[in-house]
Amino acid sequence: MFEEYKSIIEKTLEEYFDERLKNPEYKLFKNVIESMKYTTCLGGKRLRGILCLETCKMFLGDFKAAIPAACALEMLHAQSLIHDDLPCMDNDDLRRGKPSNHKVYGEAIATLAGDALISFAPQIIIEKTPKLISAEKIVKLLYEYSLAAGAFGIVGGQTADIEAENSNEKISIEHLQFIHKYKTGALFKCSLLLGAIIGGANENELDTMRAFGDKFGLAFQIKDDILDFTSTTEIMGKTVGKDENSNKSTYVTIFGLESASEKLTNAIEECYGILNSNGLKSDVLQKIIKSLEMN
Amino acid sequence: MFEEYKSIIEKTLEEYFDERLKNPEYKLFKNVIESMKYTTCLGGKRLRGILCLETCKMFLGDFKAAIPAACALEMLHAQSLIHDDLPCMDNDDLRRGKPSNHKVYGEAIATLAGDALISFAPQIIIEKTPKLISAEKIVKLLYEYSLAAGAFGIVGGQTADIEAENSNEKISIEHLQFIHKYKTGALFKCSLLLGAIIGGANENELDTMRAFGDKFGLAFQIKDDILDFTSTTEIMGKTVGKDENSNKSTYVTIFGLESASEKLTNAIEECYGILNSNGLKSDVLQKIIKSLEMN
Repeated sequence: MFEEYKSIIEKTLEEYFDERLKNPEYKLFKNVIESMKYTTCLGGKRLRGILCLETCKMFLGDFKAAIPAACALEMLHAQSLIHDDLPCMDNDDLRRGKPSNHKVYGEAIATLAGDALISFAPQIIIEKTPKLISAEKIVKLLYEYSLAAGAFGIVGGQTADIEAENSNEKISIEHLQFIHKYKTGALFKCSLLLGAIIGGANENELDTMRAFGDKFGLAFQIKDDILDFTSTTEIMGKTVGKDENSNKSTYVTIFGLESASEKLTNAIEECYGILNSNGLKSDVLQKIIKSLEMN
Repeated sequence: MFEEYKSIIEKTLEEYFDERLKNPEYKLFKNVIESMKYTTCLGGKRLRGILCLETCKMFLGDFKAAIPAACALEMLHAQSLIHDDLPCMDNDDLRRGKPSNHKVYGEAIATLAGDALISFAPQIIIEKTPKLISAEKIVKLLYEYSLAAGAFGIVGGQTADIEAENSNEKISIEHLQFIHKYKTGALFKCSLLLGAIIGGANENELDTMRAFGDKFGLAFQIKDDILDFTSTTEIMGKTVGKDENSNKSTYVTIFGLESASEKLTNAIEECYGILNSNGLKSDVLQKIIKSLEMN
């Protein structure tokens, strides 16, 4: 199922971009659409899209109505990667083992492509979500999306992260948790919520998915920090060890490897716990959580 | 009325930002909210917001329901200014006679503030538009917004503009018109449409406002090109004469001043014509069109 979701998301993303690229009206700004497509279609695990599809299926028994939203989430994720890689941000030349967006299209087009993805995602949700999903639900989707995409989501998290790096001081654990809650957690939470809203979840169920999203985001981030510390550039397909080099605060630099691994185990247990105690059955979510466990 | 609209928009924009700035939860990314507020609240004519309010009033007899949308349009406009001023784009140090956003907050935060404004605008539309406006209409508003904000609106126009500059060749009049249709026209058209949708306009009336928006955008752009050619930095509060210096194609460089002025007069006549032949009465719109006339 995991692989099926991934391939549906990737095929649909290609379609969404290609139907625009084929339109002769857009030929004078084809370049920015190609730049949008380049990073969005660069592969990756498609975790956010898959979380959305699976959550929809968990509540509705079918995932198809959530395909446009899943693709929108992957577009937003790509946007954050494009802008994070810019010279004025993390200045990263590599992304998924390929040249990052601005290395291919230049900084101006990369900046514009990111901007355009922020709006193309909700445009796709409105255009492509099946008409049987009510306007009230579409507004709810777009609201959660705009929260996650903006200052009170990934942009806020990235800002807090930049400020921490500029301060040159070791940050508090509260500050670190705050960064991750917004920078990483907000988009995972949004992915689960979009799937749940389309799937017809009630308010209690949405709250459960919010709680799950918080714990999942935490586990994901600790694992990412551990991988950054222990892995090599070759395996990750991006520049790693950067956190340690730049004296950046992470779960590993603050707590040490052993304690960070313990915290990861706890967060993973809590993820399983939330699913089990709410009777939410999903092989895919179980598998995703399992993938965060230390080998 | 013009001045009343302007002051309502400016007061409400301040409120929207200040209610976030006061929230202690957001203190670790306060900086990006301040950066968003800085350019959005830097003054300007508030033409997009005013067009939205007045169009709503024209159809509904009252403008209040359109205040959040009018503010959202001004946020999107501010976003485009912040990113256009970046060193990788137009590299402009001045905006409305003040240091541009990245000169105050740095490039990273300016980039993020622009990103955040793209999502804050629809968030505000959803949060603040009165509940008596139906979910169907909110979806329509958000759709027009996402079109104008993205590749198929201002971003596409900016891309076509950059490509024209990089080509080092004089562009065709079709190319120039295309740039303006998207770069300037899309947001004016969106402003009129948002006001008209909230005001309850039917499909025919929306088409009329689309036609009016096209002509108005054209007139506005020709006037802007003429002003850039004839005015001074002091009066405009931004770096002018840049078009001529950088050999950029404009209505003046392509047609000459006299012919550009003639085209402006024609576009203005067509604006009046569309309003009159559709029985649309508005002192404010008349006044705005009149302000584009040559002295």
